Amino acid sequence: MTTPLPLAISIGDPAGVGPELICAAWATRAAHGLPPFFAVGSRDLIEAAARRRGLDIAVRAIAAPDEAAALFDEALPVIDLGAADYTPGAPDDAGATLALRALETATGLVRAGAASALVTGPIAKSLLARVGFTQPGQTEFVAQACGITPENAVMMLAGPNLKVVPITVHVPLALVPGLLNAELIRARSAIAAAALTRDFGVQHPRLAVAALNPHAGEDGRMGTEDRDLIAPAVAALREAGIDARGPLPADTMFHAEARATYDAAICMYHDQALIPIKVLDFDKGVNVTLGLPIVRTSPDHGTAFGIAGTGTARPGATIAAIRMAGQCAARRLAAAG
Amino acid sequence: MTTPLPLAISIGDPAGVGPELICAAWATRAAHGLPPFFAVGSRDLIEAAARRRGLDIAVRAIAAPDEAAALFDEALPVIDLGAADYTPGAPDDAGATLALRALETATGLVRAGAASALVTGPIAKSLLARVGFTQPGQTEFVAQACGITPENAVMMLAGPNLKVVPITVHVPLALVPGLLNAELIRARSAIAAAALTRDFGVQHPRLAVAALNPHAGEDGRMGTEDRDLIAPAVAALREAGIDARGPLPADTMFHAEARATYDAAICMYHDQALIPIKVLDFDKGVNVTLGLPIVRTSPDHGTAFGIAGTGTARPGATIAAIRMAGQCAARRLAAAG
Repeated sequence: MTTPLPLAISIGDPAGVGPELICAAWATRAAHGLPPFFAVGSRDLIEAAARRRGLDIAVRAIAAPDEAAALFDEALPVIDLGAADYTPGAPDDAGATLALRALETATGLVRAGAASALVTGPIAKSLLARVGFTQPGQTEFVAQACGITPENAVMMLAGPNLKVVPITVHVPLALVPGLLNAELIRARSAIAAAALTRDFGVQHPRLAVAALNPHAGEDGRMGTEDRDLIAPAVAALREAGIDARGPLPADTMFHAEARATYDAAICMYHDQALIPIKVLDFDKGVNVTLGLPIVRTSPDHGTAFGIAGTGTARPGATIAAIRMAGQCAARRLAAAG
Repeated sequence: MTTPLPLAISIGDPAGVGPELICAAWATRAAHGLPPFFAVGSRDLIEAAARRRGLDIAVRAIAAPDEAAALFDEALPVIDLGAADYTPGAPDDAGATLALRALETATGLVRAGAASALVTGPIAKSLLARVGFTQPGQTEFVAQACGITPENAVMMLAGPNLKVVPITVHVPLALVPGLLNAELIRARSAIAAAALTRDFGVQHPRLAVAALNPHAGEDGRMGTEDRDLIAPAVAALREAGIDARGPLPADTMFHAEARATYDAAICMYHDQALIPIKVLDFDKGVNVTLGLPIVRTSPDHGTAFGIAGTGTARPGATIAAIRMAGQCAARRLAAAG
């Protein structure tokens, strides 16, 4: 048996909470049973972030991922892309450029098989766009790097109590009904079902598909999408042998008794998915991209420029993202025999 | 000091879970510290529902509400509107007619000052419509009986952990953006703030107003309603001296830390309000109609024809609705001196 490969973590925007949270996660690696990982970014900057947070940790540059595992017990390994200013809360183009290089490099190392999974730190999309980032977000970037169309890269938010998959994500609510169609719902749900098996070890995944309208539309009297789009998608999933139920009234899907009946909830829009998971698993939610040839997770929060460098940002989501990436990677490795 | 008046409870549809849940609530009146109440419906039917549920309780007809309090310790008092068939799960026109008469009578008794508050049992709106009910729901019926326009009767769902006010309720999601306007949001929020003081004893109510779009629309980049409708409504509320904040991203409004910062969440649509409260307070949510001259609550569930008569319907919401009605009525009485 060979040593499992380490995970690669891109630092995200240097002015955000990404760098300090990687340090905080590394500092509690033993308590949380985290697998070996290395950061991709700037060694000096990460060390400065650790100091500012009051963490007396060793941060070491490594030349290649295969040095990470041996070093991991005593120091936080970093693939060093060069120095950068550490000015928490004050993002600039140089920082955005470093964030972009870190994302590209980390993704490349995982794609090349030098690291077992990708964890991405939080970026500010509008800032990265100014320095040449052409994708709407990191998910789309990683999908393209993997040769997967964005439609087939599916976002899941996973916490200890709930897993949700929003079919539409960052769009105005008024556009949601028009963006939904049976094939989109079917395809994303099928990707979610396959990922529950491959990445989460659920042999016979059960999907609960939320309705768009109150009371699941009351048979068309309160909106037609549930009857005309979601019901056919569920029927198609069942025909394909996937244990899907719905459209279910969304308000009664998320209490403990209901959650016990499914492995993931398929939701129609951002808040329908994110409200329940943030009620239940605030600070522990992991953003997992399903349908990729690589494992990719990220903490479910943004750059939090407003509190960067103050030491108050909580590392829970970063720790959860690292742990989940490690578990998913281990499952894929085991399945590959 | 005179004895406080009893509460009036309409039985709802006789084929639903309403009658049995009133019996179950009465049976646990001491354990839950419930104030004296009487049912409005059919004595024989309520007795049959109790028997079927295995409750060996006394059910007594009373001639007038003022007999209820003295009797309440030993029997469930009923204003008897005549016999009716008890066929759980099989609603019919005769049952719907009884439900409608019970609602009318109970509302009338509270309006007349013979009872302190109104609790309405669950009805099936479409069935009542067949027997002459011309309102969309019980809330509108009660509002009209009180001389209040439906726009000024505001629905709140209240549980131990959260109070929510949906600005729009039973409409298709696609219609929500078009139904919202700043004045509607302002007016309903103001009614909610006044009710928090009058009915819930919150001297300086704090309102958290949810955004319609993901991330509160990101300053118009992801939907304009938050910037153009909700922000002005919040500004108008603040100008009127009401402690309102928003538009707030809805997904981060409902975890414990966020909930500690407000007394009620103003939500833009059904599921935005009902998902979080049903995650947190499933089975304990009370529907309260704000802005009325009388106190009116109802359990936050429907007729549940599918489980009526099986003994499995849980009385938690009915008990909570009775208790909350009693508390609100007591506050109004105390304020009236």
